[in-house]
Amino acid sequence: MAASDKPYQGSFEDGVHRFALRVYFEDTDAAGVVYYANYLKYMERARSDMLRALGIEQRLELERGEGVYAVTEVAIKYRMSARLDDDLLLLSEVRALRAASCIIHQRVMRASELLAEASVTVAFLSPDGRPKRQPRAWVEKFEQIRKKELGE
Amino acid sequence: MAASDKPYQGSFEDGVHRFALRVYFEDTDAAGVVYYANYLKYMERARSDMLRALGIEQRLELERGEGVYAVTEVAIKYRMSARLDDDLLLLSEVRALRAASCIIHQRVMRASELLAEASVTVAFLSPDGRPKRQPRAWVEKFEQIRKKELGE
Amino acid sequence: MAASDKPYQGSFEDGVHRFALRVYFEDTDAAGVVYYANYLKYMERARSDMLRALGIEQRLELERGEGVYAVTEVAIKYRMSARLDDDLLLLSEVRALRAASCIIHQRVMRASELLAEASVTVAFLSPDGRPKRQPRAWVEKFEQIRKKELGE
Amino acid sequence: MAASDKPYQGSFEDGVHRFALRVYFEDTDAAGVVYYANYLKYMERARSDMLRALGIEQRLELERGEGVYAVTEVAIKYRMSARLDDDLLLLSEVRALRAASCIIHQRVMRASELLAEASVTVAFLSPDGRPKRQPRAWVEKFEQIRKKELGE
Repeated sequence: MAASDKPYQGSFEDGVHRFALRVYFEDTDAAGVVYYANYLKYMERARSDMLRALGIEQRLELERGEGVYAVTEVAIKYRMSARLDDDLLLLSEVRALRAASCIIHQRVMRASELLAEASVTVAFLSPDGRPKRQPRAWVEKFEQIRKKELGE
Repeated sequence: MAASDKPYQGSFEDGVHRFALRVYFEDTDAAGVVYYANYLKYMERARSDMLRALGIEQRLELERGEGVYAVTEVAIKYRMSARLDDDLLLLSEVRALRAASCIIHQRVMRASELLAEASVTVAFLSPDGRPKRQPRAWVEKFEQIRKKELGE
Repeated sequence: MAASDKPYQGSFEDGVHRFALRVYFEDTDAAGVVYYANYLKYMERARSDMLRALGIEQRLELERGEGVYAVTEVAIKYRMSARLDDDLLLLSEVRALRAASCIIHQRVMRASELLAEASVTVAFLSPDGRPKRQPRAWVEKFEQIRKKELGE
Repeated sequence: MAASDKPYQGSFEDGVHRFALRVYFEDTDAAGVVYYANYLKYMERARSDMLRALGIEQRLELERGEGVYAVTEVAIKYRMSARLDDDLLLLSEVRALRAASCIIHQRVMRASELLAEASVTVAFLSPDGRPKRQPRAWVEKFEQIRKKELGE
């Protein structure tokens, strides 16, 4: 099996989750740049990868009826446009941690250029769509990450 | 030609742009609801329809190098989830009007339920990506709409 | 309620289902045309609308565990490109009808120009993904449509 | 810079291009599986990566008005469904090589399971959309790949 037979996986560095991706035709629009909604797709990929890195399997939780993370709020600023074939890097940081939700700050970088940044509020929901406490073990994982982020 | 041979078009009522759409499989995800980035697609469809209703042809402007509207900021709150086959109604209102940008408030309704609402800042950009004054004729059209919205 | 508060709905004429739509930014790519995978989205919207016109509610069938239509085969030819703001018309015809599947022929038209055409095989699947006989009442509906198509 | 700061890149092995990816929420639909049009997105990512591995920069060719590859035909069979979080491997092989087009055979694998396979015809088009001979240097690259594929 070639090394490239494994899908890409991001990683944490000093509590910041790093996730790289490339811009494909599907992401762009007739104005020649990445369509604005697709940055939210990139951010969700990064958050899903972050959860997986913490040992949280979303599909499993969904299938056994445990619950699902749902975005309740996004505040995003678009500063520069990404284009076809660009190499991007998503930087994600847990900013606030509550019983049933957390706030994640996400940046889309192209080398040293900041293309977009967002504050994303994610709530844990029961299968019937009600806010639900995040499992204790998960909260602890998020807290460990935040400590590294803060250099503690 | 059947009446249904013409694509859907929204309309203004009291200065508020109304745009209806149905949720298809492509819009949903494995959690059984509309994927969060797709609300931004719905909102862009509504804004494009609004521009068209005002006589602004985006493709023409793009082709003759006049410029293009680009989103620079979105603040969106998700309150309830849309599901497969839902009939939705997008309500869009021009909230602020500046030389090179405007702020549009957009709501996603399912009958009387508010599913999501957003404040979207849209800037007019030259083909090289720089902010540019919106053509005077367009600004006048937006102003007329706003007056109706305010009941003037 | 304005007439435009209802989402678009297609219709049957002589057994051919007609479904109109407009091309938005989300559909296009950096080459300035509709991205090739998005024609399949258009075709699915048309098929879903066709099922709905026949009284088949996909979400209901999905929720009560009856089953779901899944595409098992597509043969599509792309002849000309659709572009931003184009008005398209999808023409869909049931070509073959079997116990657990049917073949639908779909064309994407821009006025009199044929942009793309496809033969799509759709199978009815049980919730665990196995081929399943289509409900008798549905098959009868498809047969009625086919008779009109053939002018019987 | 972490190793994970570079986006994923596929590779050739015995003339077969291998490209791995993971299924995210954006790819799935309410039936709990990958939406059928999204397999075409996966296949395009793999083909773009293949071109890049051969030294062909699509954005550059697009910008300098050289031309663009456009899909003219797809025949795809869906055999099993991919699901959220699945690790997939795309295998792509050049099957036929003509002056202005080529046929690529693509398979979507999940470990040893074949989920979907397609024959994709891609034509080289001039900026005004007409078929155009592929640059000689590119054809030679494709030929070298094919030879490895055939074990020559």
